[in-house]
Amino acid sequence: MGIGLKEFERIDDLQFKGLKIIQDPRKFCFGTDAVLLSHFAGIRKGDVVADLGTGTGIIPILLAGRSEDARITGLEIQPDMADMARRSIELNDLEGRVKIVEGDIKHAPELLGRNRYTLVVSNPPYKKSGSGKVNPSDCIAVARHEILCTLEDVVEAASVLLVPYGRFAMVQQSDRLADIIWAMRKASLEPKRVQMVHPRPLKPPNLVLIEGMKHSRSHLKWLPPLYVYDENGQYTEELIEIYHMKPKDL
Amino acid sequence: MGIGLKEFERIDDLQFKGLKIIQDPRKFCFGTDAVLLSHFAGIRKGDVVADLGTGTGIIPILLAGRSEDARITGLEIQPDMADMARRSIELNDLEGRVKIVEGDIKHAPELLGRNRYTLVVSNPPYKKSGSGKVNPSDCIAVARHEILCTLEDVVEAASVLLVPYGRFAMVQQSDRLADIIWAMRKASLEPKRVQMVHPRPLKPPNLVLIEGMKHSRSHLKWLPPLYVYDENGQYTEELIEIYHMKPKDL
Repeated sequence: MGIGLKEFERIDDLQFKGLKIIQDPRKFCFGTDAVLLSHFAGIRKGDVVADLGTGTGIIPILLAGRSEDARITGLEIQPDMADMARRSIELNDLEGRVKIVEGDIKHAPELLGRNRYTLVVSNPPYKKSGSGKVNPSDCIAVARHEILCTLEDVVEAASVLLVPYGRFAMVQQSDRLADIIWAMRKASLEPKRVQMVHPRPLKPPNLVLIEGMKHSRSHLKWLPPLYVYDENGQYTEELIEIYHMKPKDL
Repeated sequence: MGIGLKEFERIDDLQFKGLKIIQDPRKFCFGTDAVLLSHFAGIRKGDVVADLGTGTGIIPILLAGRSEDARITGLEIQPDMADMARRSIELNDLEGRVKIVEGDIKHAPELLGRNRYTLVVSNPPYKKSGSGKVNPSDCIAVARHEILCTLEDVVEAASVLLVPYGRFAMVQQSDRLADIIWAMRKASLEPKRVQMVHPRPLKPPNLVLIEGMKHSRSHLKWLPPLYVYDENGQYTEELIEIYHMKPKDL
């Protein structure tokens, strides 16, 4: 196979178009949020995509599986994660369409180029850095807490990278929706499409999927709520469909 | 009874603590949104309340039924609606606790007083004034379209009226949530509590109930989704409970 695995790393099958990913469970394994975002983002033919804070590269790999011609760049600040993501790209023979750039989201415009992406996606840290003890050398902490970048940093970078009317799709904790909308508007990304993710029907949502469009006018379209589990604790049909990544018009 | 009814007016029983309301179906009859807001607002003992754009006075009357000691002021710009609301207040013997002030929301601080309300509520017009033909002398149009005031006017007025940490509760169309959050933050009303109202389960929400708190810190609590009809087209138990206004801890 030619792709080196480091200690504790493993290769997981994504059950989608034969795609695979290298993960280290001590560091970070992708979750439902990444899968939901890849589906929600609605990648289109010819999209030029950036993923801010790509981690293991899970989102670029899933997006590459959903579009045959999109070019995707993942930006990742942690060298070992960027290296792991690069090896996953090779493992999937995606080097022609997907690349990983190592660097800081706050320098995204210089690293990736301004005004040239039609779609920017991000599954940024959810927790404010003040909330709970965290260690900056801890990959899981960096992925979960706003240690190296804030929500505003991500949204501002996305806006600078995008062409006019380019889309920015993000997943976040629902309790930060006011912060998200505020940050998007300040960065000229008008919230256009939103979907709340509920662990079960009748429960409050815990995640929000949201799309902003650069320089667009105000009108927020709501998608039907997405339930992860049904009332019997089984995955809903919709979630299974998303995991299997069947094409579906959003 | 001593309360005069004008031509086309009728008295409707609110099926709640014997409360009644005068309405003129040619002008405006209250809808589910007013009932949902009265429930969502969660009036507390001793609240000093203002209702911006009170129309027939439906919200002050429902709130008076939910609190024995709250003092409530409804502000209404249309003289005939304000008059109708006053007669409904008399009809319910609520003159001691509820009063109606005739005037413009844009002058609310001068008319009602700054920094003295613990709760401000509003069921403002939903549609931007540019959307659709409207007649400023048409009561229904004024209630539905932003002819005499905008969302920003309402939110700014609410903030000026409120004491620090006072609450502002509003119902609006869900497609304006970005506008609402933006306007609230600009006016130092931090969105704290939100509930989406769906016509049915699995359908996107069409209304949003939202509470902001003056000078509060950022954290948005989501309530479970509220469904008006169930999958068989019957009112849900929750909606029936709200209509009967049983006390329920939100």
